[in-house]
Amino acid sequence: MAPRGHDQGHDMAKNRFPVWRLIQSELEAEIRSGLIGPGDQLPSEHELAERFKVNRHTVRTALANLAIAGLARARRGRGVFVEDKPPEYRVTRDSKWSEIEREMNAAPSGRLVSVSERPASATIAEMLGLSQGATILMVETVRGSTPALLIYSYHVFDRDRFAGIEAAVARTGSYTEALREFGVERFYRASTWIDCRMPRPREAEALSIPLDAPVLVMMYVDRDADGRPLLYGNAVIPNGSLVVRVDTL
Amino acid sequence: MAPRGHDQGHDMAKNRFPVWRLIQSELEAEIRSGLIGPGDQLPSEHELAERFKVNRHTVRTALANLAIAGLARARRGRGVFVEDKPPEYRVTRDSKWSEIEREMNAAPSGRLVSVSERPASATIAEMLGLSQGATILMVETVRGSTPALLIYSYHVFDRDRFAGIEAAVARTGSYTEALREFGVERFYRASTWIDCRMPRPREAEALSIPLDAPVLVMMYVDRDADGRPLLYGNAVIPNGSLVVRVDTL
Repeated sequence: MAPRGHDQGHDMAKNRFPVWRLIQSELEAEIRSGLIGPGDQLPSEHELAERFKVNRHTVRTALANLAIAGLARARRGRGVFVEDKPPEYRVTRDSKWSEIEREMNAAPSGRLVSVSERPASATIAEMLGLSQGATILMVETVRGSTPALLIYSYHVFDRDRFAGIEAAVARTGSYTEALREFGVERFYRASTWIDCRMPRPREAEALSIPLDAPVLVMMYVDRDADGRPLLYGNAVIPNGSLVVRVDTL
Repeated sequence: MAPRGHDQGHDMAKNRFPVWRLIQSELEAEIRSGLIGPGDQLPSEHELAERFKVNRHTVRTALANLAIAGLARARRGRGVFVEDKPPEYRVTRDSKWSEIEREMNAAPSGRLVSVSERPASATIAEMLGLSQGATILMVETVRGSTPALLIYSYHVFDRDRFAGIEAAVARTGSYTEALREFGVERFYRASTWIDCRMPRPREAEALSIPLDAPVLVMMYVDRDADGRPLLYGNAVIPNGSLVVRVDTL
């Protein structure tokens, strides 16, 4: 298959998507990959209009939406420049939201949204070392470590071991602190899964994002010093506000 | 904030999104997180209609779309059951697409889509240990390891060192093989970043996904046995076809 070229504008229109949105996704992909990096200048409106075979108004709408997404910013009379990258979340055995917040000089900020009980599916039971059908406690919180980084999270616990932990979470804003009140002095990240999906309505509302903006989801199991599973967490992160990083060398 | 309850249907409608799509995203979130796991039965149409305050036709549309997304499947007269999870891609120092394909008993399947040259941004130059503005080679491929797992990828190389590598990629379908032809016998994954975004039009076309379906993007730097950066890769993965996994304990 040959690379697409002059007919790109035509194919874009065919899909009944706003053309500016497709131009935005082209530029966004280049920025997110670093092919155009922080501080770099984007091509001019004129060049972009030529490249995508659209008028400058369409290009301007795409650039305005890149700015809203925090990816690029116009400097008066100088052009449009790429903004800094979003912060990195490093996955290590010591990964904890409270650590990330400490690095950002932010206080623990978990705000309790809801708590519920349900029977553990086989999948959850296996992750937490429980029997299928055992009662689990699901605690939902919103963290606003910085105005630019809002996270919606689910934390699943063995109800028999951690009954009432939501009160400690609500009071301290921190799972690390809440676990300490239950006698867990140290714990470690064992496994992390990273996925991407559309937000649930209540996630979109809490994170102030549109229902058609994807979210990055980090799922993880933390274990205590004896290797016993403590919790299964899910962090729902608005698209573009955080990049997950793993170093393996 | 209290958990949302009976007014959920109303709020959903308010957002001018098809209500079935929001119900789909609710169920999808539960399935992807494992709260409802592989083999588990979903609530009945009647129960879901009650829970979301919608009619059964709306529920049926949501369930049909879950099936299209490969997340759940109706068994005649028995109900709707959750399908198996997508395969996991484990990030380790030995992560390579050719290894994943070997695990799946698939042959190296990279198909060359395009090759281009451009000057390295400061970001890319730093990752590859080049000077800013050095010429880089960008090779785009589509991998179809299995019919269910299509990947669009970008691989960026130092043009001076790897000029012509696209021909070896086109011939062998494998970056591992192509690098061997350039004298690189062994290489390792150094760093991986995971992000989520909307697809570019040419990615959506090659992956046969809609333009409004998000993609998971894995970006990575591989180094040779001497620690010298070899390539910067980007793998664009359709939402839901692969989950990235990191073990840290």
